[in-house]
Amino acid sequence: MTLHANDLVDTELHRAVSQVGLDVEYTRSRGNTMWARGKDGGEIAVTDFISGYGSLILGHNNPEIVARAKELLDRDTPVHAQVSLRPEAASVAAALNRIVHREFGTDEPHHAVFANSGAEAVEVAVKHAEMDRRLRLAELLVAVEEHITEARGAIAQGTAALAPAVLTALGLPATAAPEVALDALEARVRAFDDHTHPAIAPRLLSLVGGFHGKLMGSIQLTHNPQFRTPFTELSAQSRFVPVDRPDALRAVFEAERTPLLDVSVEDGVVDVVERDAPVFCALLVEPVQGEGGIVPISPEFAKELQSLSAEFDCPLVIDEVQTGAGRSGAFFAGSLLPLRGDYYTLAKSLGGGLAKTAVTLIREARYRPQFELVHSSTFAKDAFSSGIALKVLELLEADGGAAYGVAAERGARLVEALEAVRAEYDDIISDVRGVGLLVGVEFADRSAVGSPMVRQTQPAGLFGFLVSGFLLHEHRIRVMPTGSAPNTLRLEPSIALTDDEISGLAEGLREVCAILRDQDDARLTAFVGARTF
Amino acid sequence: MTLHANDLVDTELHRAVSQVGLDVEYTRSRGNTMWARGKDGGEIAVTDFISGYGSLILGHNNPEIVARAKELLDRDTPVHAQVSLRPEAASVAAALNRIVHREFGTDEPHHAVFANSGAEAVEVAVKHAEMDRRLRLAELLVAVEEHITEARGAIAQGTAALAPAVLTALGLPATAAPEVALDALEARVRAFDDHTHPAIAPRLLSLVGGFHGKLMGSIQLTHNPQFRTPFTELSAQSRFVPVDRPDALRAVFEAERTPLLDVSVEDGVVDVVERDAPVFCALLVEPVQGEGGIVPISPEFAKELQSLSAEFDCPLVIDEVQTGAGRSGAFFAGSLLPLRGDYYTLAKSLGGGLAKTAVTLIREARYRPQFELVHSSTFAKDAFSSGIALKVLELLEADGGAAYGVAAERGARLVEALEAVRAEYDDIISDVRGVGLLVGVEFADRSAVGSPMVRQTQPAGLFGFLVSGFLLHEHRIRVMPTGSAPNTLRLEPSIALTDDEISGLAEGLREVCAILRDQDDARLTAFVGARTF
Repeated sequence: MTLHANDLVDTELHRAVSQVGLDVEYTRSRGNTMWARGKDGGEIAVTDFISGYGSLILGHNNPEIVARAKELLDRDTPVHAQVSLRPEAASVAAALNRIVHREFGTDEPHHAVFANSGAEAVEVAVKHAEMDRRLRLAELLVAVEEHITEARGAIAQGTAALAPAVLTALGLPATAAPEVALDALEARVRAFDDHTHPAIAPRLLSLVGGFHGKLMGSIQLTHNPQFRTPFTELSAQSRFVPVDRPDALRAVFEAERTPLLDVSVEDGVVDVVERDAPVFCALLVEPVQGEGGIVPISPEFAKELQSLSAEFDCPLVIDEVQTGAGRSGAFFAGSLLPLRGDYYTLAKSLGGGLAKTAVTLIREARYRPQFELVHSSTFAKDAFSSGIALKVLELLEADGGAAYGVAAERGARLVEALEAVRAEYDDIISDVRGVGLLVGVEFADRSAVGSPMVRQTQPAGLFGFLVSGFLLHEHRIRVMPTGSAPNTLRLEPSIALTDDEISGLAEGLREVCAILRDQDDARLTAFVGARTF
Repeated sequence: MTLHANDLVDTELHRAVSQVGLDVEYTRSRGNTMWARGKDGGEIAVTDFISGYGSLILGHNNPEIVARAKELLDRDTPVHAQVSLRPEAASVAAALNRIVHREFGTDEPHHAVFANSGAEAVEVAVKHAEMDRRLRLAELLVAVEEHITEARGAIAQGTAALAPAVLTALGLPATAAPEVALDALEARVRAFDDHTHPAIAPRLLSLVGGFHGKLMGSIQLTHNPQFRTPFTELSAQSRFVPVDRPDALRAVFEAERTPLLDVSVEDGVVDVVERDAPVFCALLVEPVQGEGGIVPISPEFAKELQSLSAEFDCPLVIDEVQTGAGRSGAFFAGSLLPLRGDYYTLAKSLGGGLAKTAVTLIREARYRPQFELVHSSTFAKDAFSSGIALKVLELLEADGGAAYGVAAERGARLVEALEAVRAEYDDIISDVRGVGLLVGVEFADRSAVGSPMVRQTQPAGLFGFLVSGFLLHEHRIRVMPTGSAPNTLRLEPSIALTDDEISGLAEGLREVCAILRDQDDARLTAFVGARTF
């Protein structure tokens, strides 16, 4: 007996998706087209709007990227050359710096740490932020110890007197000797020298609906409880702040800030100075939440995120894994808001649909070079992936960044067509939204008004998959709901998207809407029993 | 100004390695040879014993693997086809199952979860183990609740009496009513229903010297404190057990085991039954510690690991990221001990030196299909990486697995040559050890007896890098110390290793030994000022 797919890989997932006809085999792909293996042995062309969950801004098997890959293979590129100069990775970093500088209007260098997936890039950012946080804490403690020593000296020499505020701040009686006060202060400071002290544990923050990966650490930054909660004991927990609620973010910052008492010696007085211990490790934000249901961050909220994170000295990680590399109509979706980060993560489309590469950019002001001596990855920074990423950057940046304009224009055309469908069926489609070629189509909740079949799928979160199966088999269009908003289809085609492909999608959605309005369960599920692929 | 390598990527690392001449650029690679860019513009051939930290069992740019890659590119392979059947990944899983079955003498199916790096594969294993642990706990709690209900019924109906042992176990007076005892027992059980209860927190175990990756979670399973401790607050901590100390492992298991009281109703008696709450998430073991200094696990210790993990029901994760895919002389190094796991992780050489692919194999007895619905990765399971992995497996398995025999024979030949050097210089080289083509050469500590230069490098852990620089520039041989055992060079060449390459290494090491014995600092560092590449 030959073991096959359903025996050893994704048994349960395949069983689940086979109920809605998504258990299809694709044999080749190019541009926005994938070819499915037909039951009669033939090939069936399908228009792909999933596009590798956003990995294909330049399309499946883009000929220029494929040519670059073959060229790299032909010249025996040294893929594995750990602990040597890696000029291809350096060129990617340089090219990304040019783009950061242009789009964010800065000339600050951004150091690049390479990884192999979006989740890895996020974890690199958090690891670095934590190292930086602990170093900032250590630096602060050294400074405070120096100030205490200075104060002791001044008091011993009689050149300064202790302000009563110091005793009050320490909860000591007004009669306490200055030495007692400085001893008490020093004991407090030294307690923070133990990094396991709960008061100085790292605080991680992310947004409700946010998605930042599914590895051991990153899954705790991802909001969806279904994905996250089985693993809560494995990693530090994030605090989740609702989108568009700067008051809630401020409340978290205020609740978590941890004062640390310091002293100053000035004009003959040893006075108390309250500083903030660096407890905020990172705040993670997607400029457009992808997996959370295609939720663009507003420019107003972006401004608040920026100013609050600056006020509380919390490094801002802009997760551009899905939004970056041109999808938004700019290279960085954050540049459109603007939302400037201390860190940017990139992956998906940066690999051109072929390579697995990811980058974490870290602004110079936050960068800690010693991170390079403790973090590494065997597969990262390789010349093959970097050579492909360079070609992606070259194609995106060609002709003054024409590709970004195309993404914006094609996205607008797509939204326009979808809005026209919504205008006809506003009882069925509740919202169309997105930025550039990252577009969501949200169906109204039909758990009360839908047909028996639709009502049944709604609470189970299967409705979007049922619609996806219908569109695949009846219209040869490949879409998928987002994992955390199962009534929202996410559309992320490449910039090669044609008007015909848009019309095809609109036509398919019109039929879906008509069927839902008519509560025609038989028509909605007819494909299940009549599959040609 | 053009930004280049030293500006934006690994500034500090390059500065450090440039001191020992490792800041070299490689322009191409094939088999065991890499070509460095010479200062005169020419190419300088170097024999590579680092081999992508074990990623190149079939050599750099193996022509058959390169041909497979080009063939996959030529036929527009659908790299991104998420949520569809992925027959190439399924074929990899099936091929790996055939090997597991042969090498471990079992027919138990092993489910495959794909990832993009070794660290990701480890984190998949731990995530799955934690989900399984929580499900086992939930199942146990349901069973205990059922037993309590049964006991209540039996007592109410007068068909059973409470054994005094129940009251004793609960610390209740002998006069307590049976209902009070069962209420108390139920309250204890229900406390464990809250997964944040510290008594049932997951216990992770790994070995002193172990290396399991550097992502947010996996770095806490990796022993080296330099890599691990800056990030301790981000993830659950591991308990580190010394190699070859089964008593220490048993002590950890005994100290951490968490009894959970249950009841049984039998022969008219409600009696107490002590069970173990499933608190052990996973024990991680490399069959040969790689980064820890090429430390093979002994068959005796393997047997103890196996029996202790079975006794305490702790899933065993065999990390074969570096040892697997043929390097040891078998596909799984663990099969030589034998050391059978509940999980196996693979990466590195499975990608043939081109693809970034990783697999976690999970034995059927531990597998939880619902994991597939909560875990995923955009880049994983792709047809390009899987197509390359299939070619790697085909090449390794060809002619009845001839490649494994070659690895064993070439490894033995390499060790023999190194042992000959050690026989001549046993004051300099303290040990040669390894399995197959994973070989370590340990230099004696020279912090007391070395030349000024050598004494200086010893405490800083730079000695191995200095030797590596010397061998690179003076003998055109690429080696590197292990990260956690800086006096040990790790050698992981491909199976194409020739007798000449072995002789070249032996000759180079002889010169190193002679220089160290002579304390000839000038000769040891002459290359720094006379670099040709």
